Amino acid sequence: MTERKQFRDLVEPEVLSEAIADLDLSPGTESVDLLDADGRVVAERIDAEIDVPGFDRSTKDGYAVKARDTFDASESDPYDAKLVGIVDAGDKPDVEVRAETVVSIATGGSVPPGADAVVPVERTSRRDEAGEDRVSIRTAVAPGDNVMHSGDDVAAGDRAIGPGTVLTTRDIGLLAALGTETVPVYGKPTVGIVSTGDELVRPGEPRDEERGQIYDLNTFAIAAAVRAAGGTPEVVPHITDDYDQMLETLEVVGGRCDLVLSSGSTSASDADVLYRVVEDHGELDLHGVAVKPGRPTIVGEIASTPYIGLPGNPVSALSIFRAFVTPAVRDAAGRPPESVPTVQGTMAAPKRYSEGRTYLLPVAVIEDVSGDVLVYPVDKGSGAITSLTEADGVVEMPPETELLEAGQSVTVDLFSEDTQPPSVLGIGESDPLVARLLDHIDGPRYLSHGSQEGRRRFRDGIPDFAVLTEGDAEAVSGDRLATVTREWGLVVPEGNPHDVSGLSDLADVDSFVNLAENVGLRGAFDTALASHAAEQGDSLADVTARIEGYERTVNGIRSPAQRVANGAADSGVGLRFSAAELAVEFVPISVQELLMVGAPERREKAGVKELQSVIETRLEPLAARLAGYEFQS
Amino acid sequence: MTERKQFRDLVEPEVLSEAIADLDLSPGTESVDLLDADGRVVAERIDAEIDVPGFDRSTKDGYAVKARDTFDASESDPYDAKLVGIVDAGDKPDVEVRAETVVSIATGGSVPPGADAVVPVERTSRRDEAGEDRVSIRTAVAPGDNVMHSGDDVAAGDRAIGPGTVLTTRDIGLLAALGTETVPVYGKPTVGIVSTGDELVRPGEPRDEERGQIYDLNTFAIAAAVRAAGGTPEVVPHITDDYDQMLETLEVVGGRCDLVLSSGSTSASDADVLYRVVEDHGELDLHGVAVKPGRPTIVGEIASTPYIGLPGNPVSALSIFRAFVTPAVRDAAGRPPESVPTVQGTMAAPKRYSEGRTYLLPVAVIEDVSGDVLVYPVDKGSGAITSLTEADGVVEMPPETELLEAGQSVTVDLFSEDTQPPSVLGIGESDPLVARLLDHIDGPRYLSHGSQEGRRRFRDGIPDFAVLTEGDAEAVSGDRLATVTREWGLVVPEGNPHDVSGLSDLADVDSFVNLAENVGLRGAFDTALASHAAEQGDSLADVTARIEGYERTVNGIRSPAQRVANGAADSGVGLRFSAAELAVEFVPISVQELLMVGAPERREKAGVKELQSVIETRLEPLAARLAGYEFQS
Repeated sequence: MTERKQFRDLVEPEVLSEAIADLDLSPGTESVDLLDADGRVVAERIDAEIDVPGFDRSTKDGYAVKARDTFDASESDPYDAKLVGIVDAGDKPDVEVRAETVVSIATGGSVPPGADAVVPVERTSRRDEAGEDRVSIRTAVAPGDNVMHSGDDVAAGDRAIGPGTVLTTRDIGLLAALGTETVPVYGKPTVGIVSTGDELVRPGEPRDEERGQIYDLNTFAIAAAVRAAGGTPEVVPHITDDYDQMLETLEVVGGRCDLVLSSGSTSASDADVLYRVVEDHGELDLHGVAVKPGRPTIVGEIASTPYIGLPGNPVSALSIFRAFVTPAVRDAAGRPPESVPTVQGTMAAPKRYSEGRTYLLPVAVIEDVSGDVLVYPVDKGSGAITSLTEADGVVEMPPETELLEAGQSVTVDLFSEDTQPPSVLGIGESDPLVARLLDHIDGPRYLSHGSQEGRRRFRDGIPDFAVLTEGDAEAVSGDRLATVTREWGLVVPEGNPHDVSGLSDLADVDSFVNLAENVGLRGAFDTALASHAAEQGDSLADVTARIEGYERTVNGIRSPAQRVANGAADSGVGLRFSAAELAVEFVPISVQELLMVGAPERREKAGVKELQSVIETRLEPLAARLAGYEFQS
Repeated sequence: MTERKQFRDLVEPEVLSEAIADLDLSPGTESVDLLDADGRVVAERIDAEIDVPGFDRSTKDGYAVKARDTFDASESDPYDAKLVGIVDAGDKPDVEVRAETVVSIATGGSVPPGADAVVPVERTSRRDEAGEDRVSIRTAVAPGDNVMHSGDDVAAGDRAIGPGTVLTTRDIGLLAALGTETVPVYGKPTVGIVSTGDELVRPGEPRDEERGQIYDLNTFAIAAAVRAAGGTPEVVPHITDDYDQMLETLEVVGGRCDLVLSSGSTSASDADVLYRVVEDHGELDLHGVAVKPGRPTIVGEIASTPYIGLPGNPVSALSIFRAFVTPAVRDAAGRPPESVPTVQGTMAAPKRYSEGRTYLLPVAVIEDVSGDVLVYPVDKGSGAITSLTEADGVVEMPPETELLEAGQSVTVDLFSEDTQPPSVLGIGESDPLVARLLDHIDGPRYLSHGSQEGRRRFRDGIPDFAVLTEGDAEAVSGDRLATVTREWGLVVPEGNPHDVSGLSDLADVDSFVNLAENVGLRGAFDTALASHAAEQGDSLADVTARIEGYERTVNGIRSPAQRVANGAADSGVGLRFSAAELAVEFVPISVQELLMVGAPERREKAGVKELQSVIETRLEPLAARLAGYEFQS
């Protein structure tokens, strides 16, 4: 093993921005069919080359007349004229309008020679007089009445669409009216996406947990981010950390893209070879930036194509993409810089950071009843995608800011223009019934961080409601919105091979899976174990020591059952509901009360009222349909 | 000819909304590949089925240890241990960590059995001691340090994505992390688009102006509107007003779409047969709505498929689409109702309307220097696409409101969330140099309504600047931003077949094309003709009477030259620039001054400052490159 390389000379974020702005990602302009042009960016000014309409056009169904012949016409003394022709839309007028004659004309018809106005049909009547069609005009019209003159809509030579216009429905209509078949637009830069890592598995394929495999999320998320920025993603299957495979893939992708983006393998440990590939066969302009998340970012060139190496951690990769790559892709696609919406709020909890780099702190926002915004950090680490999905934006902490205090006012850069604060925010126990209940609300957010964490956050005044087990619910003061019970017990493989019928049998199983202490159901399990120990005249410690795997804990309410179903464990603690869903056997132990507790000061918030109404109408029937649940109140 | 049918029983807009809401356009749900899922709407809740990560994962490069072994370690007194193995990301740990041993681990590696923490490589050093790898740990770590436990990111059973979620980059990342290969989403309703009209021509094909042909714009604009609402447009070539062709087309399209939309042929004149087709072979639920624009709208069914017949006028068709069809398509696509942004402003000019229907008045907005919004009607009629492209939204005038007064406060429903007031608004003479100058500004709007109209609107306080000929400029007080001259004269076909060398020769041409009086260049032409008449001792009336076509006027600065180029006229008035561009011959007559005049009270507006800076840097070089132009000041 060689000495591990350390990062030196991290550049400031501005230097990274400039290095990326210096890359030429532009695919040039292209010509697209008008039918496919909406949403595209016009590359050059389009002037009208024709008049619209190209003729004097009737805007009504009626009769084309010489206006001066009607000047004396009235209801009581109509102007009487002979009908000498008909012009429908699309007809070439074949007759001239002279004194005492009119021509029937449809909306859109070409006003015939001699006529200079149209009388609407409603102000006329028609009769047959000795085999001759005659029309009575009961109103006077002025020259030009009900006629759209040639070029009245758009005149030849007018500036129609400026360069840089993002084409809307209305612009498309204008271009069609001008007879435009194809439109010159900025091309969409093609961005090749190469995820690297020996541990990656493509979604949909089996994941080997023992080998520490994870699903390749960067490829998919970055492809979506490229599209959102106006580029076209070019996705290749992820590759391993192998020098030759990396070189070949990067060169192939570089040969057909405007930009190559990799993720992973950019840090300096001995397993990370990507930066050496770029150093050896391309150009390495920059390696390492003083920003968190995202330090190990590379900028350079490979296969004569601009290259950016993103970190492998998804939060780092997506944060660097959003802050530094999006502007470059937008620019290459002819789009104006994104106007990042911001929101002002106050920190609901303090946040410390003192590594001397700029920190783009992921945060989420929640509105109180008066619409004021509370901001709370969401920081599960750079490796956790939920650091992004549970967040709404970032607060920038410059290197010299080591502390954001609770109550301090901060500016949140929201992730996108569509980012909305959740209608209602809940924190607490993971629960299938609660998950289903929330399906009936628009735009809720629920953080399944467990009952304990729900209690803590509820006390901090963050969520609108918490989902708590009985003990936690007693420890807070709030509105009891609802109470349900859920049945729990032991989950075992089909056929119950170890003949587990109760807690005492756990001493006989080979591999039990427990829940982590932050899960409320773990509390119920420990309480039951303690009673069981007392009944046996045993200590709790002795009982748990006999359970092989009591210390092996997982976080998810369904995780132990999942491991039993997978064959990775032969027993675990779980809900009757999970056992039924996963078709494993269930040994009932007890029921647990679960309470939804509302923050009294948020009672009048629209989302909370919606939640209350959904609880009233939906909770009881939902509980009745779910195995092991009972609605209490 | 039969008696023309009149509309009776127009329904109120709410009834139309309900009738359209009653149609079932839903295409159901579908499953899409994760790579194509961004921007789609999730059809059902997705819960996590696995733990993410699925194992205890190192978040640092370093050494996996039993934390309690490091409790006494410090810089001066390190904990010394034997290196017994290496775990890279993707490796299955093959060794257990016991007392006095450590395992090298990479970021993302699976923490080996026995270890419960990772010491970062920076706080360690490694050496070879008698052939044995040994590591000095210079810091204490606590259990769990630098380890992400199984399920810490997402735990099995957690609610991951709720139904109705519009998938963002971050959601795609989460779904990938969960191993999701395909996503259940709402289908996009397929909307068949059938434009009807004998006068229609497809863009790109030649247009016969004598037959009163116009380009089919509805097909293209409605397709874009369908896409914007979340549907998939299915476009067929436009058809004529022929009963059998309509029937066949509607039935074919109906057979493969979730909704059939037609435009045109919905009014009650004898040429309009569409509603009879629907009445005879489908179901006609509703015909006619009390709203302007858009009265002749049809709702029904054809080929057992929901059917909406939009009016043929583009403003009517697109207004009805936006107000009534968009909500239905969005709903069928699983999207929430559009939040139509509004802006409050004051009317810059009065607007009267008294036809007893709800009027969705197209308006445009302009900000004054303090950001207050002025609203002015844009109403060139339902047949003019510029009634929409020059507008930013609509003001709803209920039937009982007959007048909006100047200065009155109104609410504008903007067309879309992306609608922005123009950075700078100019009104006045159509001019190729001005058109090019504006290319250097982001988001300008220029209305080529002619010098006279520019003067009038400038006096009303609407535009930021006006482009005026000399006489109009003298009549207003404003900032003289720039003055240029443009050369004008007579345009004649190549080879100058009538040997036109000056104004007197116009008496000899067969078909002259003049400019309309609202065009500033027409004033210069008439002034020149008057001097010419005076020189000849003639009256102006006599001179103009001798010009065959003097009364035949068009609106566009380039229109006469265009007609000469097309062979539709043998002479016209125009700019040297237009003649050069269209490769027709030019007989110079004179030069005309054109002034850009700024509104003094808008001097400090950002867009006006940008305009001034662009005038300073760009106008003179641009003028030097354009045939016939000279920069003056």
